[in-house]
Amino acid sequence: MGSTGDDQSYVDVLIVGAGPAGLMMAAWLAKCGVKTRIVDKRGTKVFNGQADGLQCRTLEIFDSFGFGDRAWKEANRMLEICLWNPDSNGRIQRSARIPDTIPGISRFQQVVLHQGRIERFFLDHMESCGGLRVERGVLPTKLELDESLVDSSDAYPITVHLRHLSEADATPQQKGTSVNGSAIQDGLFRSNLSADDTAELIRASALDAKANTEEVVKAKYMLGADGAHSWVRGQLGFALEGESTDYIWGVLDIAPITDFPDIRMRCAIHSADSGSVMVIPRENKLVRLYIQLTTAAYNGGQRADRSKINPDVILGAAQKIMAPYKISYRRLDWWTAYQIGQRVGTQFSAHERIFLAGDAVHTHSPKAGQGMNVSMQDSYNLGWKIASVVKGHSHRSILKTYEMERRKIAQDLIAFDHRFSRLFSGRPARDIMDEEGISMDAFKDAFEKGNLFASGIAVDYCSSMIVAKETESNPVVSVQELAPEVKLGKRMPSVKVLSQADARPWHIQERLPSNGRWRVMVFAGDVTKQPQKEKIERLGAALGSKGSFLQRYKPAGARYDSVIEVLTVHAGPRNAVDIFDFPEVFRPYDEIDGWDYEKIFVDDLSYHEGHGQLYETFGIDPDKGCLVVLRPDQYVSYVGPLEDYDAVDQFFSGFMIAPTAH
Amino acid sequence: MGSTGDDQSYVDVLIVGAGPAGLMMAAWLAKCGVKTRIVDKRGTKVFNGQADGLQCRTLEIFDSFGFGDRAWKEANRMLEICLWNPDSNGRIQRSARIPDTIPGISRFQQVVLHQGRIERFFLDHMESCGGLRVERGVLPTKLELDESLVDSSDAYPITVHLRHLSEADATPQQKGTSVNGSAIQDGLFRSNLSADDTAELIRASALDAKANTEEVVKAKYMLGADGAHSWVRGQLGFALEGESTDYIWGVLDIAPITDFPDIRMRCAIHSADSGSVMVIPRENKLVRLYIQLTTAAYNGGQRADRSKINPDVILGAAQKIMAPYKISYRRLDWWTAYQIGQRVGTQFSAHERIFLAGDAVHTHSPKAGQGMNVSMQDSYNLGWKIASVVKGHSHRSILKTYEMERRKIAQDLIAFDHRFSRLFSGRPARDIMDEEGISMDAFKDAFEKGNLFASGIAVDYCSSMIVAKETESNPVVSVQELAPEVKLGKRMPSVKVLSQADARPWHIQERLPSNGRWRVMVFAGDVTKQPQKEKIERLGAALGSKGSFLQRYKPAGARYDSVIEVLTVHAGPRNAVDIFDFPEVFRPYDEIDGWDYEKIFVDDLSYHEGHGQLYETFGIDPDKGCLVVLRPDQYVSYVGPLEDYDAVDQFFSGFMIAPTAH
Repeated sequence: MGSTGDDQSYVDVLIVGAGPAGLMMAAWLAKCGVKTRIVDKRGTKVFNGQADGLQCRTLEIFDSFGFGDRAWKEANRMLEICLWNPDSNGRIQRSARIPDTIPGISRFQQVVLHQGRIERFFLDHMESCGGLRVERGVLPTKLELDESLVDSSDAYPITVHLRHLSEADATPQQKGTSVNGSAIQDGLFRSNLSADDTAELIRASALDAKANTEEVVKAKYMLGADGAHSWVRGQLGFALEGESTDYIWGVLDIAPITDFPDIRMRCAIHSADSGSVMVIPRENKLVRLYIQLTTAAYNGGQRADRSKINPDVILGAAQKIMAPYKISYRRLDWWTAYQIGQRVGTQFSAHERIFLAGDAVHTHSPKAGQGMNVSMQDSYNLGWKIASVVKGHSHRSILKTYEMERRKIAQDLIAFDHRFSRLFSGRPARDIMDEEGISMDAFKDAFEKGNLFASGIAVDYCSSMIVAKETESNPVVSVQELAPEVKLGKRMPSVKVLSQADARPWHIQERLPSNGRWRVMVFAGDVTKQPQKEKIERLGAALGSKGSFLQRYKPAGARYDSVIEVLTVHAGPRNAVDIFDFPEVFRPYDEIDGWDYEKIFVDDLSYHEGHGQLYETFGIDPDKGCLVVLRPDQYVSYVGPLEDYDAVDQFFSGFMIAPTAH
Repeated sequence: MGSTGDDQSYVDVLIVGAGPAGLMMAAWLAKCGVKTRIVDKRGTKVFNGQADGLQCRTLEIFDSFGFGDRAWKEANRMLEICLWNPDSNGRIQRSARIPDTIPGISRFQQVVLHQGRIERFFLDHMESCGGLRVERGVLPTKLELDESLVDSSDAYPITVHLRHLSEADATPQQKGTSVNGSAIQDGLFRSNLSADDTAELIRASALDAKANTEEVVKAKYMLGADGAHSWVRGQLGFALEGESTDYIWGVLDIAPITDFPDIRMRCAIHSADSGSVMVIPRENKLVRLYIQLTTAAYNGGQRADRSKINPDVILGAAQKIMAPYKISYRRLDWWTAYQIGQRVGTQFSAHERIFLAGDAVHTHSPKAGQGMNVSMQDSYNLGWKIASVVKGHSHRSILKTYEMERRKIAQDLIAFDHRFSRLFSGRPARDIMDEEGISMDAFKDAFEKGNLFASGIAVDYCSSMIVAKETESNPVVSVQELAPEVKLGKRMPSVKVLSQADARPWHIQERLPSNGRWRVMVFAGDVTKQPQKEKIERLGAALGSKGSFLQRYKPAGARYDSVIEVLTVHAGPRNAVDIFDFPEVFRPYDEIDGWDYEKIFVDDLSYHEGHGQLYETFGIDPDKGCLVVLRPDQYVSYVGPLEDYDAVDQFFSGFMIAPTAH
């Protein structure tokens, strides 16, 4: 089995698993310039199947890394959900239409896109951030955590043995239930993938040069993003807790030939007695069907006999459910079948050194379109925190907030999935007296309520050292009523503002890219009025002073906004103000580039894109204004008065480390 | 000079020059699958300088090829023009603000982007359409046109000798006036260009293998897009006619260090006695300054002594004009100087076999931001016509419309530039009695009027066999009043409509990609009313009949929409209609993909993007509807009643060729 032992190297963060959760982690660390390796035992990335919905919030996150537009352009947008139920004669009919994304909650709406494309966006992003690449065909074989070193900031308490597989070993075996002959044919992606393939093949040959060798890696931090059967979780001895159910579902990705009029809508179809179908329209003329397979056909409640499930059986079930409409296909892209189960991990980290994310800590059914989203959002929550600690900007203690924040999301998710799956899998009630059946009104209600949860926008992180909610234990307390719609613990909402210097409209979120920076948002109010102007002068003096938190936490020689960025949105008329009306700290000077024209914004009418009405939408009084602190992941840490510089200083003092003290 | 003679090959179209006009031609031909070569004598593409504005219309065209979003994302948007004039004390002050793009005329606004990036978009597009590549370091040396063959459709009447240069010969000499040491430093594009460089270098070595050889190419058609000193134009013996002027302008691309408050706006600054500056804010913190150099300093009206012009001299002039504001720089990206001249070619083609486009047929000053746009729009007008003729779909006679349509645009352009340049170069009037001075009111007025021209949206092509305006000679006559805002000869305006099948909003222009197809737009009206439904049934029967123009001009075995595509927009409520309410020809069937869900749209309210109000905006009566025919370049050919199938049939019969007749 080749060499071992002596071949030892050091890395800040080791990521195991290059699915969406692992790639999101890698995206953060690459962007923040943290020394990282990401390994995956598979030899190639996924090519078909595994489509999934992308929530609004996920698209916002993609956009913050600079590739939201690629997903938005390529994906299929789902606009409407059509609910189909039996009428009094048992024939299915459309009973309701509801918007798939609640209007107004985000600048994006839910879309569907092949997972292989999403992975491609991450890989391109990592490449553009210094060239971090996935090492494929690499399998961890041994993991040790030296508990005596976990609190020592410069230590490498983690030791991992990695085995480099041969190309043949790294190519996953085809499973009988998930592949058939025609599944490989995917015209849409072939052109994209041909470019991918070249690079993959070059790397595969490099991989084979190392085949069957083993190396030892010492790491400061580690992420196990290695899926439902997580090897990392197993090594840590953590369990997933929860249950599985009897419901068996088949999945077909087909180009449908059908007279069903809503085949390009997201549909939930409950038949009278034949089960349910969910229709998910996809890109490239494909439609995904989730089809309930009646338990009777499959061994009555026992673990299903998968050998009896094939595309013809699944299609036959769909045809019964969707009758009298006809449905068939000539093109099958992929298919599978699964049983529903909901489980959550008992622990999300070992000593805040080794973390788990994604399917490694929560599993559930795919139909709610949540899996990939919640997984990526796990590591989106964690990535900047680890980067900040590794770079010496923050105390290790902020890492405890990962489990505090994400475990609740995982629990909410499985509760949602549990309720939703049962409503969807159940037989519709024949009438009001049919107590065993599912009420279609209750189903519609659950769908509508679930939509907010499913958007990812509802996520609300608890009070902590980095979310200054009004709790007794928190030394810094926000004044939420100064900006009632900029809610503590939730992601910063977005409306359009104009750049003061060039009148260009920007969604405010577009000015909050994921680059590891904290942000102090100065809602300056109407600065053409003297009281607001004076507040800004005083705040500018405090922020600009030598001992301010802006100065204290900035590494020597670094750019003025490298750790904490100040962004201002005022409410004066644009034409009555220019950037030189603000103290220098709000529009800093660079010896090469001159004044910074990209820090001051105004809530005013644009020429071509309307008026964002930020102050009105966020509930901020232009005669008061406020200060808002945003985390690097755009979640709201603090809301307080413009006058209270000290509270913000105290907030940052709670977890930040001045460079000299490090 | 190597071998000659025997090395002879055949190509449908040969393009000389790989600037924007040549690349636009190549984009069309690559998209339409026409056998094409494109050669350029330069060894590499441009890397800095040569920024230019992109008009709304140019962005619409880019979007029709699929890369509008890339330009829109990377470019700097110019939103506002600020006019600065001397006050009564001779000190400059802001006298007016006007929108840079007239609100509402397009879904895009004018932007500025480095020409090298624009060329990159074209090259990527060509690569994705079958791999057409620019052959660099290739120089035409001899051109012959056999006039006896020009009317013979399958002939190759053009013979061109091409010399392959060595890498050293193909690298352009640095000119003293356009390069200095610091000009190479361009941080923004370095990362993009490093990828470019690799590919360029590989090709350069291939180029050297052919160095100093000569080959003979026989072509059906040829485009000279080889710039103001066009070799092709010279070979044809055509001239440019017009004049040059005394005005000398310097250009600086700098990262400005200044207290001038509008440096990120487009500004026209007239000083009292020191000349004028135009400010063009660019991407990457750069600003381009066009700076008038007083003639006194440069040899009083004679051809300027360029050796005396350098960045310090130009900056000095800017500092005088912009005083009392200060301006300097540490970063200079590029600079040049030029004298204004306006000229138009006497002829745009030789026998509609060899064509000229871009600077080869019109030159003018760069400040109006028109040059690259009009050049690209020349070949955008021509490309689909040549493709259509080469593929045997259209009679050669349509090629006459190129000069008919584009010569007028070139003349309008130089008239606009002539007027605008003089207004901008002149000294502002001191008061109403100062008749030698320029009235600032007249200047503002010209700027506002010029804005519509400069957008590219105002282009209005004359009556011809492919634009059925109401003229005596035209056998097919439109009924413009059925859609007063869908103006014959102009490009199809755009508002949002919803896809009937999935409720997704689309700008109607997004459904008109540049792929060579003609389109019949069926504005079906309110199809929930019986009279409209009956009209659509009758139209569907005519279109679906065996002898219809849809069937006649479709090559055997080709897809139903490969030559003429039918798109429908109805005005009924979306929820009351589905695609199966329309005859099959409006939503054709494919044996693999099933029904076509992408042909029928509705003018209704969207969930997230408002209501396009197409019928109201275009002035179409939902109780009448109409038929509109669009050219492959989105210009309006015909407007008529839904009932008049025959007129549309007659229109296409005027120039189309049935496959069997070919």
